[in-house]
Amino acid sequence: MEHLSHLALEIPKTDKPRVIIIGGGFAGIQFAKGLKKANYQVVMFDRNNYHAFQPLLYQVATAGLEPDSIAGALRPLFENQKDFYFRMARVTEVDVTNKLVKTLVGEIDCDYLVLANGSKTNYFGNQIMMDKTFLLKQVPQALDLRSHMLQNFEQSVMVKDAFEKDALTNFVVVGGGPTGVEVSGALGELKKHVLPNDYPELDFEIMKLHLVDARPRLLTAMSEKSSDKAYKYIENFDVNVKLNTLVKGYDGKTVTLSDGTEIPARTVVWAAGVKGNLIKGIPKSSVERGRVLVDSFNRVQGAERVYAIGDIAIMPTSSNPNGGPMVAQVAMQQGKLLAKNFIKSQKKTAWNPFKYNDKGSMATIGRNKAVVDLPRFHFGGFFAWTIWMFIHLISIIGFRNRVVVFSNWVWNYLTYDRGTRLIIRTFVKEKSPKPKLPFNFHQY
Amino acid sequence: MEHLSHLALEIPKTDKPRVIIIGGGFAGIQFAKGLKKANYQVVMFDRNNYHAFQPLLYQVATAGLEPDSIAGALRPLFENQKDFYFRMARVTEVDVTNKLVKTLVGEIDCDYLVLANGSKTNYFGNQIMMDKTFLLKQVPQALDLRSHMLQNFEQSVMVKDAFEKDALTNFVVVGGGPTGVEVSGALGELKKHVLPNDYPELDFEIMKLHLVDARPRLLTAMSEKSSDKAYKYIENFDVNVKLNTLVKGYDGKTVTLSDGTEIPARTVVWAAGVKGNLIKGIPKSSVERGRVLVDSFNRVQGAERVYAIGDIAIMPTSSNPNGGPMVAQVAMQQGKLLAKNFIKSQKKTAWNPFKYNDKGSMATIGRNKAVVDLPRFHFGGFFAWTIWMFIHLISIIGFRNRVVVFSNWVWNYLTYDRGTRLIIRTFVKEKSPKPKLPFNFHQY
Repeated sequence: MEHLSHLALEIPKTDKPRVIIIGGGFAGIQFAKGLKKANYQVVMFDRNNYHAFQPLLYQVATAGLEPDSIAGALRPLFENQKDFYFRMARVTEVDVTNKLVKTLVGEIDCDYLVLANGSKTNYFGNQIMMDKTFLLKQVPQALDLRSHMLQNFEQSVMVKDAFEKDALTNFVVVGGGPTGVEVSGALGELKKHVLPNDYPELDFEIMKLHLVDARPRLLTAMSEKSSDKAYKYIENFDVNVKLNTLVKGYDGKTVTLSDGTEIPARTVVWAAGVKGNLIKGIPKSSVERGRVLVDSFNRVQGAERVYAIGDIAIMPTSSNPNGGPMVAQVAMQQGKLLAKNFIKSQKKTAWNPFKYNDKGSMATIGRNKAVVDLPRFHFGGFFAWTIWMFIHLISIIGFRNRVVVFSNWVWNYLTYDRGTRLIIRTFVKEKSPKPKLPFNFHQY
Repeated sequence: MEHLSHLALEIPKTDKPRVIIIGGGFAGIQFAKGLKKANYQVVMFDRNNYHAFQPLLYQVATAGLEPDSIAGALRPLFENQKDFYFRMARVTEVDVTNKLVKTLVGEIDCDYLVLANGSKTNYFGNQIMMDKTFLLKQVPQALDLRSHMLQNFEQSVMVKDAFEKDALTNFVVVGGGPTGVEVSGALGELKKHVLPNDYPELDFEIMKLHLVDARPRLLTAMSEKSSDKAYKYIENFDVNVKLNTLVKGYDGKTVTLSDGTEIPARTVVWAAGVKGNLIKGIPKSSVERGRVLVDSFNRVQGAERVYAIGDIAIMPTSSNPNGGPMVAQVAMQQGKLLAKNFIKSQKKTAWNPFKYNDKGSMATIGRNKAVVDLPRFHFGGFFAWTIWMFIHLISIIGFRNRVVVFSNWVWNYLTYDRGTRLIIRTFVKEKSPKPKLPFNFHQY
């Protein structure tokens, strides 16, 4: 990998041990913050200068929130943290034996290496899906989906062909986990309450929403009761749920399902799965199911003073032999605990093993409806929806973002409006044939 | 110009006369709204699906506001307006004799044609400036400048070469009108209050701000008193003002001024002037100083039933022989009046000529300082700054946007913070040599 010769990683060597954290997500942030008063030099790498709250990305995509509401710059989180260095640089490789991190800006060594670089979309080897579908893993992807969706509606009032009109207004969401369910519900809300006001010329009966999952029920990580409720709620939003169904093919215009159904759709959202975001140099023996195998102290198996936390780490335990779920709660708890254990090292006391404190899981389905699974209790409906909102609000980092998200929710709820229906990025997923749009094509 | 064969402009013919408006800015919106209850079919074209409040774009560029605060979708403004059609499509040519409008989606005829397509950046023929400088005319440009600026700071903590470090942290603003003055002030504020917290490793003495203007004073459209005050205020923000000075050259790294000074700068903001956004097909005899010549009823000279309003129109009068200023107030007033005159036509009463009601002009210079020129009164300082904020707030379209902007201002003022320091669009102005960035280069 070519280096950028005008740049260098010049981080002063002190007598403190150096910890490198790869990734500024939930796990990395909690770990770095936990070391604030400890005697370590902390160096954090991320290819973005911000962290994003992924569970609400679907609201950015459906024009309910702007990116600044759910994302925040990383640097301000560590403003008063001494001997902390942030570098916006892509890590290309790690050498776990020599504790060496290679980036596009050069390489740097450390005493302790913490992998916290999360997960990425799993296409299960399907290249066509990779080229032609939309994702909800990163902020720019959410903005792309938003622009694409609004562009399609602008075109739908001008399109001559009935098939094309169908394709422009139909949506297929692949994957019935929380992201798939939540984005389907949000699209249902747009169809019911928002878009018909904008496009009075369009008969919204033609806008069809499909949610496809290979498994026999939605939200497989939740209780069956919640799955059933979610199914009922989402059908109320006119979403056509197809379970036990695979996507067989997609040419950018028509989705073919395993049951033979063909759906005209210019927009397919891929929310079918994630996998570990593995970096080159992780020994094969340390990888299991595409994630980095760790013990109950988040120590990477087969490497010294190397740790993995959050989505990238897989920690098989007796209660979770396949490894814990890839969710924010695990990432935060592992980040916090590892920092505490690092401090214990300096105090020469024994480390505590990780024990997941499962606070429950939940998903929202459009206006007024959600399902919540607490360890001993499952419920749904309006009360679940208020709980969902409250938990998400307190999980967002930063007081400003909480206020902005809350105000937007109140506004959207009271007015049945979405404030951010702006096509700022002209976006065309399909690169070939050359995009033809009725306006200037500028790839801003 | 190639047409998009799958799209068509199928707008139903009624017995109402058809009015086509090109452009959904201040002038076009006011005109179209004014015809709400009149007996006309109204068709509006714009290449964006939103209107933007240009005077605050510099705050989007300097991370103070998100685009949704100062821009709004066009369609919701006309939700309940009957026989109104919006088409997001680029107009390529007009035929003023046959009242024909040609777009990328096909052509359409009308009974009345209203040109409201505003202004564009004037480079005064300087191709280098066109390729290498940043603008503040459109929302994507403001976001580009924001991302570019933050990327440069991220690189500045890694760069080896002293010249390059200088270039990454220096800013040259060309043009001492309101946009140039306001963006310089905002950059001064970032230098003083915001960026040093983010980059404690960087000595902010090296961040140099330059404001260059060919004319002998700043804000030439305002009183000399206000010019002098603005000069004083802006120097307090460490902005180096160079009057009577031209930019002679720029290679993407070094700006050369007419006095021989060379300034290393990776960021040059071009705010030196605007010109009419002329469409192909406007007869040469109707063009003056790059704008469309109109009489006091906004009728285009030499064409029947064709009108021009706002920045695109030039209306020489005895008090303004060079034509009125290209500002929002003129555009709004002309749009409103033309709609009233259209209604008068149907009532067969006489049209009223345009008379500009000059409500004064103003500019803000960073925190707490502004200058205001009222017709008979000039003042500056903190009181002017509160007036500036109030007037801008009430000028923004839509209650939601006013609330969002106001809340952001209160937050920014109280915390000395900027909420939106996210590098979402990786942006490199200079296309050749190929950009090298320390992170993934994705042109989202």
